[in-house]
Amino acid sequence: MELTVYLAGQIHDDWRDALEAKAKENKLPLHFVGPQTNHDKSDNIGEDVFGKQPNNIVKDDAASSINNFRTQILMEKSDIVIALFGENYKQWNTAMDASLAMAQNKPVMIIRPESLVHPLKEISNKANVTVENIDQAIDVLNYVFL
Amino acid sequence: MELTVYLAGQIHDDWRDALEAKAKENKLPLHFVGPQTNHDKSDNIGEDVFGKQPNNIVKDDAASSINNFRTQILMEKSDIVIALFGENYKQWNTAMDASLAMAQNKPVMIIRPESLVHPLKEISNKANVTVENIDQAIDVLNYVFL
Amino acid sequence: MELTVYLAGQIHDDWRDALEAKAKENKLPLHFVGPQTNHDKSDNIGEDVFGKQPNNIVKDDAASSINNFRTQILMEKSDIVIALFGENYKQWNTAMDASLAMAQNKPVMIIRPESLVHPLKEISNKANVTVENIDQAIDVLNYVFL
Amino acid sequence: MELTVYLAGQIHDDWRDALEAKAKENKLPLHFVGPQTNHDKSDNIGEDVFGKQPNNIVKDDAASSINNFRTQILMEKSDIVIALFGENYKQWNTAMDASLAMAQNKPVMIIRPESLVHPLKEISNKANVTVENIDQAIDVLNYVFL
Amino acid sequence: MELTVYLAGQIHDDWRDALEAKAKENKLPLHFVGPQTNHDKSDNIGEDVFGKQPNNIVKDDAASSINNFRTQILMEKSDIVIALFGENYKQWNTAMDASLAMAQNKPVMIIRPESLVHPLKEISNKANVTVENIDQAIDVLNYVFL
Amino acid sequence: MELTVYLAGQIHDDWRDALEAKAKENKLPLHFVGPQTNHDKSDNIGEDVFGKQPNNIVKDDAASSINNFRTQILMEKSDIVIALFGENYKQWNTAMDASLAMAQNKPVMIIRPESLVHPLKEISNKANVTVENIDQAIDVLNYVFL
Amino acid sequence: MELTVYLAGQIHDDWRDALEAKAKENKLPLHFVGPQTNHDKSDNIGEDVFGKQPNNIVKDDAASSINNFRTQILMEKSDIVIALFGENYKQWNTAMDASLAMAQNKPVMIIRPESLVHPLKEISNKANVTVENIDQAIDVLNYVFL
Amino acid sequence: MELTVYLAGQIHDDWRDALEAKAKENKLPLHFVGPQTNHDKSDNIGEDVFGKQPNNIVKDDAASSINNFRTQILMEKSDIVIALFGENYKQWNTAMDASLAMAQNKPVMIIRPESLVHPLKEISNKANVTVENIDQAIDVLNYVFL
Repeated sequence: MELTVYLAGQIHDDWRDALEAKAKENKLPLHFVGPQTNHDKSDNIGEDVFGKQPNNIVKDDAASSINNFRTQILMEKSDIVIALFGENYKQWNTAMDASLAMAQNKPVMIIRPESLVHPLKEISNKANVTVENIDQAIDVLNYVFL
Repeated sequence: MELTVYLAGQIHDDWRDALEAKAKENKLPLHFVGPQTNHDKSDNIGEDVFGKQPNNIVKDDAASSINNFRTQILMEKSDIVIALFGENYKQWNTAMDASLAMAQNKPVMIIRPESLVHPLKEISNKANVTVENIDQAIDVLNYVFL
Repeated sequence: MELTVYLAGQIHDDWRDALEAKAKENKLPLHFVGPQTNHDKSDNIGEDVFGKQPNNIVKDDAASSINNFRTQILMEKSDIVIALFGENYKQWNTAMDASLAMAQNKPVMIIRPESLVHPLKEISNKANVTVENIDQAIDVLNYVFL
Repeated sequence: MELTVYLAGQIHDDWRDALEAKAKENKLPLHFVGPQTNHDKSDNIGEDVFGKQPNNIVKDDAASSINNFRTQILMEKSDIVIALFGENYKQWNTAMDASLAMAQNKPVMIIRPESLVHPLKEISNKANVTVENIDQAIDVLNYVFL
Repeated sequence: MELTVYLAGQIHDDWRDALEAKAKENKLPLHFVGPQTNHDKSDNIGEDVFGKQPNNIVKDDAASSINNFRTQILMEKSDIVIALFGENYKQWNTAMDASLAMAQNKPVMIIRPESLVHPLKEISNKANVTVENIDQAIDVLNYVFL
Repeated sequence: MELTVYLAGQIHDDWRDALEAKAKENKLPLHFVGPQTNHDKSDNIGEDVFGKQPNNIVKDDAASSINNFRTQILMEKSDIVIALFGENYKQWNTAMDASLAMAQNKPVMIIRPESLVHPLKEISNKANVTVENIDQAIDVLNYVFL
Repeated sequence: MELTVYLAGQIHDDWRDALEAKAKENKLPLHFVGPQTNHDKSDNIGEDVFGKQPNNIVKDDAASSINNFRTQILMEKSDIVIALFGENYKQWNTAMDASLAMAQNKPVMIIRPESLVHPLKEISNKANVTVENIDQAIDVLNYVFL
Repeated sequence: MELTVYLAGQIHDDWRDALEAKAKENKLPLHFVGPQTNHDKSDNIGEDVFGKQPNNIVKDDAASSINNFRTQILMEKSDIVIALFGENYKQWNTAMDASLAMAQNKPVMIIRPESLVHPLKEISNKANVTVENIDQAIDVLNYVFL
């Protein structure tokens, strides 16, 4: 039984690669999907498709419509959603992705540093599991297949 | 036809009072509900009910379980959800409340300053309407009853 | 038992007034809601709230976001949706409103002239009832209370 | 991960062939389904199955019952719905197909010429993405797999 | 707490009057709704609204579209569905009404004579309660308010 | 794309074999499932599993619990439900199976002789398509793959 | 805003009276409903309605069908579900009522003594809030109205 | 057609092995999943992942969050849920798993000894089938494929 995991969250570092590598080391039968991780591509996809937009609000709305289209397709195909929150970014779209997944009865795991316990407490309380780092996330995923 | 509006978002200033006052001035048939706005009460409700907790993570989880219980009750009774994002806080629970409301097919309006257009672009794109301030929010609510 | 009826469809003539007047004559316990019927107001509400927009696409999107917000609120409160299609307009939003109502298990009645039988055949087939004019619509509503 | 795409919309020209050809050129792992594109077949399927009907209304209802049966089967198997609106036809069934897909949380992309921005503004606002032509649609589909 | 009860089933005798009278005797806070019980009216409502139809199949489809419209409105407002099956009629619409109510998580009680135990066994097994007569149905309703 | 079809309806003749044979002749990519068609087995499965029951009501309830378990499993795996009604039996379970399928948004086709048009009119009106015989059912299934 | 609270759980002591009395002392705008608390009545309602049953299994099934009918009606009308688990009974129906409420997105509070932390840990983790006694439950309900 | 079966219930004896072995003997095309059956592992998984917790309540909540995450993933992939109740344990999580499965329209079979008829009567009444032992469960599973 291979499971598909959507990796929601920041696209500013390589946490997805690290998590996928450890899943592979553990021979977990997981297939990973996620958002566009090329940040420029993600921000500019609206103008890449529609051409120059009249201002930044319209540019951002165009990009987000395509990003949300992508997310909705891939999240619908996923059995598990993992959402990582880091210390430096707003990441409200990550909170939205995790919440929409919960509302669809998809199992959700949050990864966040201890410094973010307080602002994430309501999401952690609604999610299935909250861990502090990628190693703990792998431990939890491992347990599903024991 | 009186409608109930859940006012999600930060509890650090008096934006709810301002919005409610303007709704009253406009004689809009609206009834407002929202989270506990006494910040200390909201953070300490877990220990107020269960007594001293062993550490901050457990204290925060206890408080958030009661805050989420309250939010779920009141949001379920609401016809409209308005979520305000300000510049100073993480407000991931606000993003969660707005997203869970969308998932339940509740009409959602976002209020955010122009400075937050970029980080909120995916939520704005999913919500029904995004405005920049309370006056615009009142204009939109007014239009519902014209 | 008073029922609420959402009147979807064109806002270019006074069909809503005619239907409501006949319902009143028949002493039907119905409460009617519907879209903004002032056409200019409906088209301009985006700019009325947000100010001048950079082009017509953005202006239209701004207006439609507020119109959809209004429709979603009022349709959610409705027990019945009646959608009228006339010969002169595209009315794709009417088709959307009727279809979203069907998907929410709301009873839907279509009013359309015989000339539109062919292009509306799939919607008629999915709707509960299709009639040709307001008098027939009143006959059907009357039957609900017999 | 191969995805299935339902191509809703007019059956009067060969836009589906054009889109499928470009998807193939781009080596996108997509499988396409859609309505019966032989127009006569689509209009006459009711009489083909049930024999001569007493009038055009009944003939159209018979055909649409079978067309809706087909659409419901294939749309249920689809991961993405693309709906094209052209300038010449009423296409209310296209608006219904797109709206029912939205109501089932399926990602929806609209293709429409700029001339139709105004009458399609409410559907565009509810859909995930709206583009103006097949090339832009391919750009968006491409982005899902980047 | 007043509850609304939809009384599905045959319209050939006065079982609804009998049940409602006994509910009144027992001072149960119940409000009853149900199908059109004037049999001729129910069969002819299609032609009453649309005029003479070309054949009986079309006449029956026209009538049933209006009967289903009525049923859907009233069942949606109901807290309980009671479906009575008698020995003399096909009553497949009664089976449909009861089943659609079950699918919407509405509590369903079946009333049927012992002679119909066998052909109704699958429906009885899915319904909440099955009783043999009106007195037993009143006993069960009474118990809800004890 | 192979589709699974649940064949609901009477188990007193070999209509399923006839339909499956014609589907095979037409090379339709369909996989058929359905209820237990050995009538004695179907009636006695309760006592086969649980032993002699105290009376026929309990015996029938035991059998129907297992029959409904089987139906729910197989119908959930099906893309299409075809329900045949014949002239000789009550078949209320068939009406229930078709109605529960409709409530789950599964495409439903009814097969019934012309003599049953009247008592089945409300179900026919809710189903996607109603045909009179197996040949017409095959024509409709064929059309899905054209 | 008056809220309705379903009090699931054991019917062997007077915990409901105690909780309702304290809610009244606190002037909380709550209306309470719950199962039949006369234990004999609850166990015998099947035979009270249907007469002597052939054995205890059938007697219990008859009673539970009526108890579940009652619970489903009243829980559907409730805004909050509180489920109390005590040390002496199996109370699997309490676990079912709480779980079905969660699945319907109803806010759920568990009351259980510390001795039951371990066997109730999975339900506590899924519920919104878990408290140890009636006073804490009142504190939480009070907070909803602050 | 291979089906996946989730085996909910006590992890204190080897009933799963026995049931799986008999399914294999009968060549039933079934794939079994279930909870972590190493009891120590199940109780300690929270501390295994997060390290020593401050007290047993927090330790249990940590373990149950991971157990519920696992259960939700595997139950979502299952076509059938079988829940066994034995005489010695509280097993409220088993009641929850079975109830959440029912709420998701998954077919549910209960296995329980005759001694537990009374406390399980409401769950038995809601489940599809209740049997007394593994042999009867296999008989029922066998019947699905006859």
